[in-house]
Amino acid sequence: MSFNRKVVILRIGHRLSRDKRISTHVGLVARAFGAEKIVFSGVVESSVIETIKRVVETWGGPFDVDVVANPLTFMKKCKEKGMKIVHLTMYGENIQLSGIIDRIISDNTDILIVVGAEKVPGEVYKIADYNVAIGNQPHSEVAALAVFLDRLFNGRELVKEFTNAKYKIIPCKRGKKVVRVGVTDES
Amino acid sequence: MSFNRKVVILRIGHRLSRDKRISTHVGLVARAFGAEKIVFSGVVESSVIETIKRVVETWGGPFDVDVVANPLTFMKKCKEKGMKIVHLTMYGENIQLSGIIDRIISDNTDILIVVGAEKVPGEVYKIADYNVAIGNQPHSEVAALAVFLDRLFNGRELVKEFTNAKYKIIPCKRGKKVVRVGVTDES
Repeated sequence: MSFNRKVVILRIGHRLSRDKRISTHVGLVARAFGAEKIVFSGVVESSVIETIKRVVETWGGPFDVDVVANPLTFMKKCKEKGMKIVHLTMYGENIQLSGIIDRIISDNTDILIVVGAEKVPGEVYKIADYNVAIGNQPHSEVAALAVFLDRLFNGRELVKEFTNAKYKIIPCKRGKKVVRVGVTDES
Repeated sequence: MSFNRKVVILRIGHRLSRDKRISTHVGLVARAFGAEKIVFSGVVESSVIETIKRVVETWGGPFDVDVVANPLTFMKKCKEKGMKIVHLTMYGENIQLSGIIDRIISDNTDILIVVGAEKVPGEVYKIADYNVAIGNQPHSEVAALAVFLDRLFNGRELVKEFTNAKYKIIPCKRGKKVVRVGVTDES
């Protein structure tokens, strides 16, 4: 397991206005926890995409944002390319009990992680190679994505170095320490 | 480490309307990841509290929701009772590098976890015993809380049994399986 494995997030079922901040958090978690791209399906406020892009400009990347019209078509295309599809759902196999994370890691393929809002079409459960529950209780797609990626990358994502960051945090016991960094792109 | 340790979440800096769904997700994560109570400071929409209470009624507890006027006074009171204060912040000590989770676990005290929105008063950093970063990148307080509790309870929170649940999910590979359960309170 390493960051050589490509992880893409597909956010489906975004509801205009209501899900604006949750979808933004899903995008920021995707970047901060080691994914390389988030894809929204359907119609999403431009402010969601702009906020994520602004974070990439300020804190570094690489990290991409995209929008697709049809999530099921996108899932099928990813599958044809050899990616495995992981659908995060409270109804799925419990990550703590089922050994499912070891199976996903040993697949050693690129991964598409599908993160839904309240209603998810039944077909998503069928197309997915794995339906994974981060516990079988209702909580949050933001939390589910973070814990899944933390288990997948085994904590290494939390010390990932981003490139072309304008700012960097120096961890400290009290208060805030932020430093301005040079542009590190050598091109 | 076990669930014998009491964990309370303090959500500060909630902004009306804007943070409605994020604060709801913080509350649901608190319950699903093994905390026993969430406390909001200041003014919060009743719908946030009602949604969390409805989840407790449907999926079980025990889990409490409360509101306090002054978060700093509440933090100080918790400290006087012997609780340790953990403040989750991207500026803090990195959970992956600092060994901070082992120190918190070996304290073996009850814990108050403080989860902020965008602006957090400087005093919070000072009153906190630990300022912990779930990585030093911007992402989401929902994600930070989930990953912190997952590390604190070492995954056991994801198989926690809740009492007085009306419904229970039977994990499965495809689709949804939900069963109605009897009221288990023996009183």
